[in-house]
Amino acid sequence: MNIYDISKEAGVSIATVSRVINGNTNVSQKTKDKVLAVIKECGYTPNAFARGLGLNTMNTVGISCADSSDPYLAKAIYYLEQMLRKNGYDVILCCTGYELEGKQKYLNLLLSKRVDAMILVGSNFVEAEDSKNDYIRLAAKKVPILILNGALSGENIYCALCDDFQAIYDATNALIQNGIKDILYLYNSKSYSGKQKLDGYMAALKDNGIAYRKELVSYFTGDLQSVTNHLVSLSQNGLDFKGIITSDDSLAVGAIKYAKALKLAIPEELSIIGYNNSIYAECCDPELTSIDNKLETVCKNCVSTLMGVFSDEPVPLKTIFPAEIVKRETTAF
Amino acid sequence: MNIYDISKEAGVSIATVSRVINGNTNVSQKTKDKVLAVIKECGYTPNAFARGLGLNTMNTVGISCADSSDPYLAKAIYYLEQMLRKNGYDVILCCTGYELEGKQKYLNLLLSKRVDAMILVGSNFVEAEDSKNDYIRLAAKKVPILILNGALSGENIYCALCDDFQAIYDATNALIQNGIKDILYLYNSKSYSGKQKLDGYMAALKDNGIAYRKELVSYFTGDLQSVTNHLVSLSQNGLDFKGIITSDDSLAVGAIKYAKALKLAIPEELSIIGYNNSIYAECCDPELTSIDNKLETVCKNCVSTLMGVFSDEPVPLKTIFPAEIVKRETTAF
Repeated sequence: MNIYDISKEAGVSIATVSRVINGNTNVSQKTKDKVLAVIKECGYTPNAFARGLGLNTMNTVGISCADSSDPYLAKAIYYLEQMLRKNGYDVILCCTGYELEGKQKYLNLLLSKRVDAMILVGSNFVEAEDSKNDYIRLAAKKVPILILNGALSGENIYCALCDDFQAIYDATNALIQNGIKDILYLYNSKSYSGKQKLDGYMAALKDNGIAYRKELVSYFTGDLQSVTNHLVSLSQNGLDFKGIITSDDSLAVGAIKYAKALKLAIPEELSIIGYNNSIYAECCDPELTSIDNKLETVCKNCVSTLMGVFSDEPVPLKTIFPAEIVKRETTAF
Repeated sequence: MNIYDISKEAGVSIATVSRVINGNTNVSQKTKDKVLAVIKECGYTPNAFARGLGLNTMNTVGISCADSSDPYLAKAIYYLEQMLRKNGYDVILCCTGYELEGKQKYLNLLLSKRVDAMILVGSNFVEAEDSKNDYIRLAAKKVPILILNGALSGENIYCALCDDFQAIYDATNALIQNGIKDILYLYNSKSYSGKQKLDGYMAALKDNGIAYRKELVSYFTGDLQSVTNHLVSLSQNGLDFKGIITSDDSLAVGAIKYAKALKLAIPEELSIIGYNNSIYAECCDPELTSIDNKLETVCKNCVSTLMGVFSDEPVPLKTIFPAEIVKRETTAF
């Protein structure tokens, strides 16, 4: 099926068909309706040809994430793809890496493909320095932008996330109630969510009358082995801690391996709490107490918000879900 | 930019532009070249509009996998997306589930979107009963089909895989050389690759003069905890084994947890070998000896084969890479 067939079927010239589908106003409403009716009759809308010709939907949503092989992000992409497909949308996947430059480049690239919306997966998309997020606000002038696990204000930007502040606050508080006051906080992201988590740790200390000690907060990125080495070196340099809370399960697995290297009993001599309740938490030994940040719920909300936006229904700009601590073997409570 | 601009720039009528881009032969070669040159100059090819008008490429490759949150498949998707994007192709992702019906449905759906090619990720796409694969052969009449980690014969079907037979043969042989003769083989897939692996196990036994015992081959699917329970129940029913080889790392983690439950020393009383060398292998304790099936290499080959197909270069129908055993703490060798 092509432009000839449409013109023949509608009984108008090819030029007229072109005018209609390119939104040229120099066509009578009657002719326009006739051409669009033919296009619609042919079941043309989801067809790349018709879409490309300027009908307004690609029925395609772009999903950007830093690294689709990260177990947590992989899970999010899986949920989103399933839910979007159920609603008749294709997913164009884009792995941007963790650098701002890649995120910007691929967001613009996907916009040029005329996706109907963009979902940015992972709090790392929201930079702590707010002006660096302006490229997202600019993109939101073209299509709705949804941010999964990050919060950003702006027109046509919708956020679905988990209450990371409260989650780490509660975890820290739980350890303190268990008599552990020297808690190492280990994190690997300075994103919006990373900041929320750190704030939760500090607030819990404060509310329990425990002084904040800078040396107990450690920013570190690297593979499993290097996380273990990092903790061993902190300990060998005389830092004393009986609890570790991490911003990510992979860091917590590194902490478990550190305990093993130093022959520390878990949880008797060291308590550990991870974040994301990912596959890591069940693979390791002992199994990891971890914060479940309700990924499936957040993804479901994200897609239903998007469908609301598409149908011009009123939708919330920001939806925040509470997390839950899943207790396993690395804590005494 | 639209069809008007092209016609103006090329100095021909809109109808002529339409004829050219729809492949109508009723245009002189000279005019055709002129129009195509304008289209090319405008950098038009990757634009949805131009593509939709009938230029033959969407610059989009469909990737189907059963479950993009499976760590192994997630890694494959990540590699493929990166490599395809470098070559200027978008990725439409589709999670089909493990049932034949879903695989068929989504393959046809993606074809209707006019993807330039399809990559089927994971050996589970190739059914052991060959007639069930005919829907793939049918699809290959429209676009090239690439199968990652599965082998299927057929025109326009290209396979990149790892030698699963030899990998399990070598692993089984290594345990036997270590004096372990009662080896449990635990698997969770009856796909092409699943069959290759099982054959490798049986061939190694045979070549070492060890009788095949049906009760030592166990098919089981389920989550981590249920794998552990399954092994405990096999053992409690009197089955004796000193080695476990699994078709997948997640099963091997279940085996490690089984050893822990029964207080068996690893590897002194039980040796374990996993498959895929995934993130599981490093998270568990003790760390898992696992077969690295060279996923990145296989993905790279798959994409370069596809680019070869697109440029009409001669490409192999099937490329097979050797695997490698990565030795960690669950084996004595």
